[in-house]
Amino acid sequence: MKILLVLSYCGTNFCGYQVQGEKRTVQKTLQDAIEAVFAKRFDITGCSRTDAGVHAKEFVLCVDTDWQEEKIPMSQLPRALNTHLPPDVAVRHAQIVPDDFHVRYCEHEKEYEYRIWNAPYPDPFSHDFALFFPQKLDCEVMQKAANYLIGTHDFASFCAAGSKITDTVRTVRSFTVTKEGDTVLIRVRANGFLYHMVRIFVGTLIEVSRGLRTPESMQELLLARDRKQAGYTAPAQGLYLHRVYYAKSALLENEW
Amino acid sequence: MKILLVLSYCGTNFCGYQVQGEKRTVQKTLQDAIEAVFAKRFDITGCSRTDAGVHAKEFVLCVDTDWQEEKIPMSQLPRALNTHLPPDVAVRHAQIVPDDFHVRYCEHEKEYEYRIWNAPYPDPFSHDFALFFPQKLDCEVMQKAANYLIGTHDFASFCAAGSKITDTVRTVRSFTVTKEGDTVLIRVRANGFLYHMVRIFVGTLIEVSRGLRTPESMQELLLARDRKQAGYTAPAQGLYLHRVYYAKSALLENEW
Repeated sequence: MKILLVLSYCGTNFCGYQVQGEKRTVQKTLQDAIEAVFAKRFDITGCSRTDAGVHAKEFVLCVDTDWQEEKIPMSQLPRALNTHLPPDVAVRHAQIVPDDFHVRYCEHEKEYEYRIWNAPYPDPFSHDFALFFPQKLDCEVMQKAANYLIGTHDFASFCAAGSKITDTVRTVRSFTVTKEGDTVLIRVRANGFLYHMVRIFVGTLIEVSRGLRTPESMQELLLARDRKQAGYTAPAQGLYLHRVYYAKSALLENEW
Repeated sequence: MKILLVLSYCGTNFCGYQVQGEKRTVQKTLQDAIEAVFAKRFDITGCSRTDAGVHAKEFVLCVDTDWQEEKIPMSQLPRALNTHLPPDVAVRHAQIVPDDFHVRYCEHEKEYEYRIWNAPYPDPFSHDFALFFPQKLDCEVMQKAANYLIGTHDFASFCAAGSKITDTVRTVRSFTVTKEGDTVLIRVRANGFLYHMVRIFVGTLIEVSRGLRTPESMQELLLARDRKQAGYTAPAQGLYLHRVYYAKSALLENEW
């Protein structure tokens, strides 16, 4: 039986999502909890491979198990797993999915959020949860630049050097820059993301706010297809996998 | 010259505010930073003595220094101190105050906030920042109970056993229970607080929500003047010193 799980995790003390030998990763931690509950080890497939320090609010993964309702009712499965998980990761939803459902190959869009603590003094509560940037950011001009990045484009300039991906065309459905108190929230939803794409977007928009680039220059930057012409890679701790949206055809129930 | 500082700190890794020998406390950490900036050690007086694990958004303190504008402009003082502070504490404001101003003896009110993460699954982002309570809380009935605690009363039932304080009459100016997403926010503003008062309020209101007490029973509880009749003491990690309000006469400029 194929089970879909939705996880939240704080990435600070994980070496990223994916298993890397004995290192503390989200995948390994969850596999251990599943083994504790099912008394068997199962492979899990995650929707993404977040880097060390990157957080997730709604990370989706699938696991093929020998689950039986009479042993653990599905509604109790999150709680059963959570009793075996450390405080920096939690299962918030579980459901059965069709066998042909795949978290990565079924049609979907992901939304990432990047948080910037934008005040003259650092915030002790967001040290691991946001980038601290003391100079006042201009959300309006950042949004103007972001608007040029919405749509279907070749995002090669926004892909970390060394990535082996050859098709660098993606469709950005929405890209917003808003302010909530002293926090600047950047949200990008797309049908796929290149390596470090959001973090390079953020580094580039900060340079736009500082007047080092114009919003209009985003057009040339897209055409350049050259990582060296884009801005710096903003640090991991401000980044969150915010949500994953599956097409209705891929997954009937998608309400968590 | 007497200087007022406003601090934020995350209490998780501090043994409370007040100096206790060599233990890591907020007061000692700040005194070290002041010594690094002024090349001299000065005594500081805080507005409160928060316990281990308790946080502060706007903690007010005073320090008598030999500060001179020509050495460090007042507007630069927070930044100078922050370069010597660890990430879990930050100075967010500094100003000169009259010599007769006193953070504890001048007329003031404090507001505390208590945060409860109220969802069926734990939240990895609020493990150290809120109480996790999985059963759904009824904010309406909790507010009804809170309303009986507003005003001038003898709060002896809500004072930790063993406290040496004899005058247990305080005036609660406001007491609200609201919900923000999955977080229940309890805010209490008063002219003074007894030891563990807010945490006992919270434990008691949770019992009201669970149907173990009625909102009306708060009246008898106040009259009882008996700690044993109130609810449990909610844990430290959900508590924040939210704000301190000084009377206009005590402090002319009070805008941080």
